[in-house]
Amino acid sequence: MSHVVVTDIARADAEVVDALAEFGSATVHEALGRLGFVGAHIRPIQQDAVVSGSAITVLTAPGDNLMVHAAIEQAQPGDIIVVAPLTDSPYGMIGELMATQMQVRGVRAYVTSGGVRDSTELRRMGFPVWSALVSAQGAVKDTAGSVNVPVVLGSAVVHPGDVVVADDDGVTVVPRLLAADVLDAARARAAKEAANRARYASGEISLDLNALRPVLAALGVDYVTQADHDRR
Amino acid sequence: MSHVVVTDIARADAEVVDALAEFGSATVHEALGRLGFVGAHIRPIQQDAVVSGSAITVLTAPGDNLMVHAAIEQAQPGDIIVVAPLTDSPYGMIGELMATQMQVRGVRAYVTSGGVRDSTELRRMGFPVWSALVSAQGAVKDTAGSVNVPVVLGSAVVHPGDVVVADDDGVTVVPRLLAADVLDAARARAAKEAANRARYASGEISLDLNALRPVLAALGVDYVTQADHDRR
Amino acid sequence: MSHVVVTDIARADAEVVDALAEFGSATVHEALGRLGFVGAHIRPIQQDAVVSGSAITVLTAPGDNLMVHAAIEQAQPGDIIVVAPLTDSPYGMIGELMATQMQVRGVRAYVTSGGVRDSTELRRMGFPVWSALVSAQGAVKDTAGSVNVPVVLGSAVVHPGDVVVADDDGVTVVPRLLAADVLDAARARAAKEAANRARYASGEISLDLNALRPVLAALGVDYVTQADHDRR
Amino acid sequence: MSHVVVTDIARADAEVVDALAEFGSATVHEALGRLGFVGAHIRPIQQDAVVSGSAITVLTAPGDNLMVHAAIEQAQPGDIIVVAPLTDSPYGMIGELMATQMQVRGVRAYVTSGGVRDSTELRRMGFPVWSALVSAQGAVKDTAGSVNVPVVLGSAVVHPGDVVVADDDGVTVVPRLLAADVLDAARARAAKEAANRARYASGEISLDLNALRPVLAALGVDYVTQADHDRR
Amino acid sequence: MSHVVVTDIARADAEVVDALAEFGSATVHEALGRLGFVGAHIRPIQQDAVVSGSAITVLTAPGDNLMVHAAIEQAQPGDIIVVAPLTDSPYGMIGELMATQMQVRGVRAYVTSGGVRDSTELRRMGFPVWSALVSAQGAVKDTAGSVNVPVVLGSAVVHPGDVVVADDDGVTVVPRLLAADVLDAARARAAKEAANRARYASGEISLDLNALRPVLAALGVDYVTQADHDRR
Amino acid sequence: MSHVVVTDIARADAEVVDALAEFGSATVHEALGRLGFVGAHIRPIQQDAVVSGSAITVLTAPGDNLMVHAAIEQAQPGDIIVVAPLTDSPYGMIGELMATQMQVRGVRAYVTSGGVRDSTELRRMGFPVWSALVSAQGAVKDTAGSVNVPVVLGSAVVHPGDVVVADDDGVTVVPRLLAADVLDAARARAAKEAANRARYASGEISLDLNALRPVLAALGVDYVTQADHDRR
Repeated sequence: MSHVVVTDIARADAEVVDALAEFGSATVHEALGRLGFVGAHIRPIQQDAVVSGSAITVLTAPGDNLMVHAAIEQAQPGDIIVVAPLTDSPYGMIGELMATQMQVRGVRAYVTSGGVRDSTELRRMGFPVWSALVSAQGAVKDTAGSVNVPVVLGSAVVHPGDVVVADDDGVTVVPRLLAADVLDAARARAAKEAANRARYASGEISLDLNALRPVLAALGVDYVTQADHDRR
Repeated sequence: MSHVVVTDIARADAEVVDALAEFGSATVHEALGRLGFVGAHIRPIQQDAVVSGSAITVLTAPGDNLMVHAAIEQAQPGDIIVVAPLTDSPYGMIGELMATQMQVRGVRAYVTSGGVRDSTELRRMGFPVWSALVSAQGAVKDTAGSVNVPVVLGSAVVHPGDVVVADDDGVTVVPRLLAADVLDAARARAAKEAANRARYASGEISLDLNALRPVLAALGVDYVTQADHDRR
Repeated sequence: MSHVVVTDIARADAEVVDALAEFGSATVHEALGRLGFVGAHIRPIQQDAVVSGSAITVLTAPGDNLMVHAAIEQAQPGDIIVVAPLTDSPYGMIGELMATQMQVRGVRAYVTSGGVRDSTELRRMGFPVWSALVSAQGAVKDTAGSVNVPVVLGSAVVHPGDVVVADDDGVTVVPRLLAADVLDAARARAAKEAANRARYASGEISLDLNALRPVLAALGVDYVTQADHDRR
Repeated sequence: MSHVVVTDIARADAEVVDALAEFGSATVHEALGRLGFVGAHIRPIQQDAVVSGSAITVLTAPGDNLMVHAAIEQAQPGDIIVVAPLTDSPYGMIGELMATQMQVRGVRAYVTSGGVRDSTELRRMGFPVWSALVSAQGAVKDTAGSVNVPVVLGSAVVHPGDVVVADDDGVTVVPRLLAADVLDAARARAAKEAANRARYASGEISLDLNALRPVLAALGVDYVTQADHDRR
Repeated sequence: MSHVVVTDIARADAEVVDALAEFGSATVHEALGRLGFVGAHIRPIQQDAVVSGSAITVLTAPGDNLMVHAAIEQAQPGDIIVVAPLTDSPYGMIGELMATQMQVRGVRAYVTSGGVRDSTELRRMGFPVWSALVSAQGAVKDTAGSVNVPVVLGSAVVHPGDVVVADDDGVTVVPRLLAADVLDAARARAAKEAANRARYASGEISLDLNALRPVLAALGVDYVTQADHDRR
Repeated sequence: MSHVVVTDIARADAEVVDALAEFGSATVHEALGRLGFVGAHIRPIQQDAVVSGSAITVLTAPGDNLMVHAAIEQAQPGDIIVVAPLTDSPYGMIGELMATQMQVRGVRAYVTSGGVRDSTELRRMGFPVWSALVSAQGAVKDTAGSVNVPVVLGSAVVHPGDVVVADDDGVTVVPRLLAADVLDAARARAAKEAANRARYASGEISLDLNALRPVLAALGVDYVTQADHDRR
């Protein structure tokens, strides 16, 4: 029940972490068995950014960024700082000055179920952010919290060292120990999709490729004309 | 109470459908007597796209895109696929592979009260989407639904073959049989607005052009100085 | 309890009003003692716009823009029109034609807890807007309201002549009589931040610059290894 | 596109309408093939009321109850007045005086996607209401609308004369022409549930009664000990 | 910009304050010209309570109840404590122990745009509360705020000494200096409603009493049969 | 990444579990260091119920209750079934028949971030429920999930065997291994509160008992007269 900063967390293999970015949050979430997506309310503040990295997790009081200051020191190149306020937090918890410190240390992104500010500058700096909101409302530095403990980010739990994959579709969290398996599954899935993409581009449809016609029939879906339908 | 795919829906005249796009969802909604707007929560995932098309309607279970696969086969060039999950559906129900099939068949847009994914790719493909959300969370293909039956899309009912007009202001639905009349009304309205625009640009104001001063007087709105107001 | 249009409101010194824009809504809100932010739900419809101006306030019925027509006549160059519907108002209360009139008169922006439409055109015109939503749903001109009385805009009260500062982080309202003091405070704050920015860019961190280590210690936050933490 | 009051709508057989109340909104919605529920946001303002009746539908502007006055005259004993404002309507559109008129005419309930007021008195009168909200904010009587046209109520379309079933679980709408079939299906379902209820009360479980063990097995759900699970 | 506790606020005449309770929030809001309602999201935690009182206003940080402690000392018998956190505040900011202090001092109710806890005990004590939410999440006592300054409560501004009227329909705020006039208007309105209530109970309808038939005609609302309507 | 039912979870000491109920969710959450509250959106469907029990956790697809059927078999007397759909789930996932099975087996309550139905019957049965919503919309039994794995319930993580404490203030989750310590802390807290309650009831105030006057002074909060305040 006391608060801690854990200083020596384990991370997934760097090549695995980096490779996951190329598949994006949707494919990675599929490869994880349709789990790990944090929810549609955590959105990018920029367009077209795709990142993956190891989570430095931060548990804070709403509107209090004290522990984010502490988290920056714990970050290494390739990390993503994940900030989960305990309840709704309609504040801009970090801005340009905090992001500068992160960027200097090689932090790849900031992900939060709360908010950020200085959004114009953050985009100009090329420092990507995913957040529930943007707000000019500032934070204080008064309340204890923890760094590198498990946190709830939207509908997912993030453990320190888990892999975070984020793009325009949102944020997916991959448990550290599953990262290599998920990468394999994502590669397999992407290969299959590439094959299908070519067939769709040439006019085939998924009703056939996925053998869905018998599924529809088994579920009792009838094909009818408008005239027949009106007569029912 | 059984599920169907209606295969031969009627559509409005193609020239009428196409012409409605040039007026946009706001003017068309006015021309329809201020009806048909589906609500501010269904937003474009891109900027500056304007489309009109004939609705292929799809009634689905939340998080289940089986019937969207069936709907693609029913679509013709110039159609817009309109997907209405039965309740809230925070899923990315389609992505790039589904959109590729639609684009090959000449489908002009995808409109939904649920969500989509692969949003980056959808924008790159130039395939426009209006949706309630973007989500990496994927769908299944397990549950029966219907294609080309009336559906509730936000605050509007969409019948198959109705005309959908969508732009940055959102989505307006025009009943098929009223499409030609609405086009006439939209043209008249746009002509009047063009005339007014020039007068506004030269400094006139709508208080005069719309004869609103007597309306204000009749409603008892007084013009007062700050000093007089403070004395009240 | 009757409705008025106040015709001769006081404004802050024009140089002060103009100068506040350069600091943005977040810094200005800090300079005001962390007050005046209207809430994260009032968002820009464009990117990268930064404005400041004197508030022309408008109290309206939801979905009724009669008083906005009246407000335009009261506006002077450098003003910002602030429209606060009495309750939720999911309407596009103004569009291109109203904005044209505003722009001709030198109005710098439109800020509302309701909605706007013609959003594409508004962006093309370079007329900046902050609103709670975008909607094609049109307004009527039937109901009395007031111009230049105090209004509630999100979580802030706006008096006529107050200074509005708006950018990508949202909207902050500065009481007219405090504008000069707030400008001084914003300048001091910005100077201090510039100094810190350089130090952060060279690798220092805020944990040291802000002397936060003793704060953490006083709050009982422990630094522990993962192994020690797991043993607790 | 003009507004009407339809004066001679068809209703379902009165015995069928009355009989549906005994099954409640959940069973009736199941009997309709899991359709017709208007959404969890339309809630009773009282507890333990159960009603069924024929819909008098009312399309209104938000915050304007003119057409509700017109609707009362069209109501017969056994009807339920269903009011669907065109967009969000955070107003108390009716109160005690309107409800008195309804009750005198034998109207059984008031159902709305907007709000009501005088909620204390409505409960004391024993006049049941289902609404999206309760609000002291009053309505005006200025805007045209329609009575007895199809309306969108939450996620369902209500046609005049459709059967509305409402209880503590919310509101379900049954198309008029399906009412008798749905009643039969509800009776069958209730009979089956009564049989199961006794078996559950004596200790049997649905995993067996519904033969769900093979379903779990087919889906690959494993039964494991905690120790085995931790080893995975 | 500094924080204060104002110690000697003016209140409205006690007889006027007390008398307003008998009319309830809806009638009082009408008597005020349809203004002063704080919004449907601030709800009673009990049923059938009706109170009026003079506002002790409290501006707090979200989740920090320090200033509520200070406010209790400023309260007199007949007051209502009105707590407005600066932004969303999903906390139970007070519970039984704070309410005990209030009740001992004759405070009549607690009204907040944030939350409360110990809701069971508060109901048992007969201490009425109107709040945006109920939450077990506790508050801290760390941050400065103000007592008896103007605050924003939902969509209304509350000045210290304003009259608060609250019942099952929600909360209405009457400016102190208008309280006597509003009481007169409420009495006139209630008398008129009592007369109408008797007529409605005997079968007359508001369409006639309010002379709404010509209004409908002027707005172009047609009375048609279903057959005629279908032919359109 | 596969789905499991864990069959032999550990529970906290039964006396500890039972004893926690007497303190309620607010005091228990304080005793846990202000953690463990699941959020204000998960509400009781009844009034005045207070329960504690050991969590049987259930991870489901939205709208699919297959795994709840499986969970019932795993429950023992004194357990609480905790159901966390993977995303928003506006369905009545269980009703009277499922609750009957639970009640027969000694399950004390049902807690969910989704919905329930048959709410009238559940109250009549005296089977307490905490849920995000009530909905007649029914569930299917088609999709795999897990029983007795860690789940995210609102803003808390629930592990199987954790202690759930629920009352009118909402739901708090206590990690199993901390249950005894939290009980001690809750007792200490309750004893202290009892002592304070008596002093408050006799007229003392928390400003004195909590020594808050110097806190206010240190934060720069000034006590001023209205006249002095107006002069600032």
